Amino acid sequence: MPENNRQPDCPLPLGNYDRIVLAHGGGGRLMHQLIDSILLNAYGDSLLADSPDSTAIEVEGTRLSVTTDSYVVRPLFFPGGDIGKLSVCGTVNDLAMSGAKPLYLTVGMILEEGLELEELREIAKSIGETAREDGVRIVAGDTKVVEKGHGHGIYINTAGIGIREHGQMIGPSKVEPGDAVILSGDIGRHGIAVMAAREKLPIEPPIISDCATLWKSVERLLNAGIEIHCMRDLTRGGLGAAVVEIANSSEVRVELVERNIAVSEAVRGACEILGFDPLFVANEGRFVLFVPEKDVLRAIDALSEISPDIKPVKIGSVTNESIGVTLQSLTGMERAVQMPSGEQLPRIC
Amino acid sequence: MPENNRQPDCPLPLGNYDRIVLAHGGGGRLMHQLIDSILLNAYGDSLLADSPDSTAIEVEGTRLSVTTDSYVVRPLFFPGGDIGKLSVCGTVNDLAMSGAKPLYLTVGMILEEGLELEELREIAKSIGETAREDGVRIVAGDTKVVEKGHGHGIYINTAGIGIREHGQMIGPSKVEPGDAVILSGDIGRHGIAVMAAREKLPIEPPIISDCATLWKSVERLLNAGIEIHCMRDLTRGGLGAAVVEIANSSEVRVELVERNIAVSEAVRGACEILGFDPLFVANEGRFVLFVPEKDVLRAIDALSEISPDIKPVKIGSVTNESIGVTLQSLTGMERAVQMPSGEQLPRIC
Repeated sequence: MPENNRQPDCPLPLGNYDRIVLAHGGGGRLMHQLIDSILLNAYGDSLLADSPDSTAIEVEGTRLSVTTDSYVVRPLFFPGGDIGKLSVCGTVNDLAMSGAKPLYLTVGMILEEGLELEELREIAKSIGETAREDGVRIVAGDTKVVEKGHGHGIYINTAGIGIREHGQMIGPSKVEPGDAVILSGDIGRHGIAVMAAREKLPIEPPIISDCATLWKSVERLLNAGIEIHCMRDLTRGGLGAAVVEIANSSEVRVELVERNIAVSEAVRGACEILGFDPLFVANEGRFVLFVPEKDVLRAIDALSEISPDIKPVKIGSVTNESIGVTLQSLTGMERAVQMPSGEQLPRIC
Repeated sequence: MPENNRQPDCPLPLGNYDRIVLAHGGGGRLMHQLIDSILLNAYGDSLLADSPDSTAIEVEGTRLSVTTDSYVVRPLFFPGGDIGKLSVCGTVNDLAMSGAKPLYLTVGMILEEGLELEELREIAKSIGETAREDGVRIVAGDTKVVEKGHGHGIYINTAGIGIREHGQMIGPSKVEPGDAVILSGDIGRHGIAVMAAREKLPIEPPIISDCATLWKSVERLLNAGIEIHCMRDLTRGGLGAAVVEIANSSEVRVELVERNIAVSEAVRGACEILGFDPLFVANEGRFVLFVPEKDVLRAIDALSEISPDIKPVKIGSVTNESIGVTLQSLTGMERAVQMPSGEQLPRIC
């Protein structure tokens, strides 16, 4: 998740840390504090705080969206994808979530001395293939090499430029009581697929990452004339972090119903063994969609038959009772869903 | 230097390497082979090969330039700058070299566990300050954290978007016999400043990096109506690599005169001790400019008085005798300047 959804005007203390810890990159509270108190203050540019996944700019009347993301996943290859595919999907999806049609990508690689050229070849192939799926062109690239022991095979940064051809304003500020929350498919697969590959967990058959580009889904929603209030892809921090962020930004209450949130048996089992809550496990091809209740059926219809992997379901609704997120559990109990601090989040990117 | 000046249609063998070596990132022949034979083939997108420092795109009639660069410099702080300043200058300069006015930057950071927050604060401050110098806005950011031993404090990727408001075609294809080559100031300072800081060389007073943005220089040239055939900033590979690349792309001969190429006494002395040729040492605020002979005086005039650091001098001319670069040495001897393979290049980025 890019950092452009942070509020620059409310710097927060960085707790007791005077050095970077892993949790600063986990997608939780610590990361948000780091971005607010150090980066946004220094950049002094309000554009960063305006929109969630990508930033809207206008150049000579052309409405563009811009985003960037770095990819540091280990291992480099996992069931369902690799770091190359991921580096295209993640950035394309950030553009798509603002309703922008992805047009151009830049690709910066930091290679570690010792990386096998054959691996690089595979990764580059994935980048090219995934970009072509959505007709995205790679327009600029850069390659650096760092000494052995100062990288992890390959780190990739991609930046994306898209065009907003529609007239809709899409973002948390549009979310309002009466909206429904739609989830595009089952959750937790990417995070567990990567962790299983990294830790060599004996899960058979292997769990396949949901890694995929979401532009086609968004294009269908736009073409169907759905009134899209907000979309968010469920990467670092998973469904839980995404919905908490939107609820907080929108100053609404989101009530989720657990039984409508699809989690495969395999993911649920792995989460139980590993001690993770699937709600906070990362995905790379899933998103939530906030639409007015009246558009729910048409939205679900528009998203159907794109791929067997996409099974849109209404998982909750927006009220104005108080700010935050609640989850009605399988047993009917209601609990508050809160932003994890970062330490508890599984590190998969 | 971004990789978009490579030719995708002439894949070259990768020598005897089946793994990445440091020289693959050195800016020499090996890097070019890597990009040609692996990356461009896989991306399958001709836009990458069209232009040198940044890529020209057109979105709904708006003429944009796009570029990306990753920064892995060690140490993070050096006389005259830090990795933050560098990450703005490098990318802004790649835009400026195509004659594009830099508008927007994205900033992706890969932080290593253990980095001091105070250092991050300094670096972020440099990014903000340097961007504001040219009125460039930071529009998107991303922060990842990697485990200790898998980074080097901080790696930064920036991507830049600029607008080409002028009607000139600027690039190696415009270089022709009769052109003059202008160098914007003394060379070798950035590379030596970084190496001296890294190796703790006892150079007193310290050599200050020339790290600076070049947009103001380019703006003056454009405003003065100079017919700009080609510009190139002299980063990895230095003046030597830049001019060899342009000569090869343009299929011309560039004849340089060594006595006109300014090298400070301190840099010359350090190069002699370290065994480097200043011609191939990296700079971060220097560029070469190819203009028709008739425009030389006006170009030098336009570049004057921008800063005490900028001292434009004609250093050579273009002929059609054969393809390549020659240097008339201080003793009057003429020698061929060739692209170093990468192993011989000082690693400073």
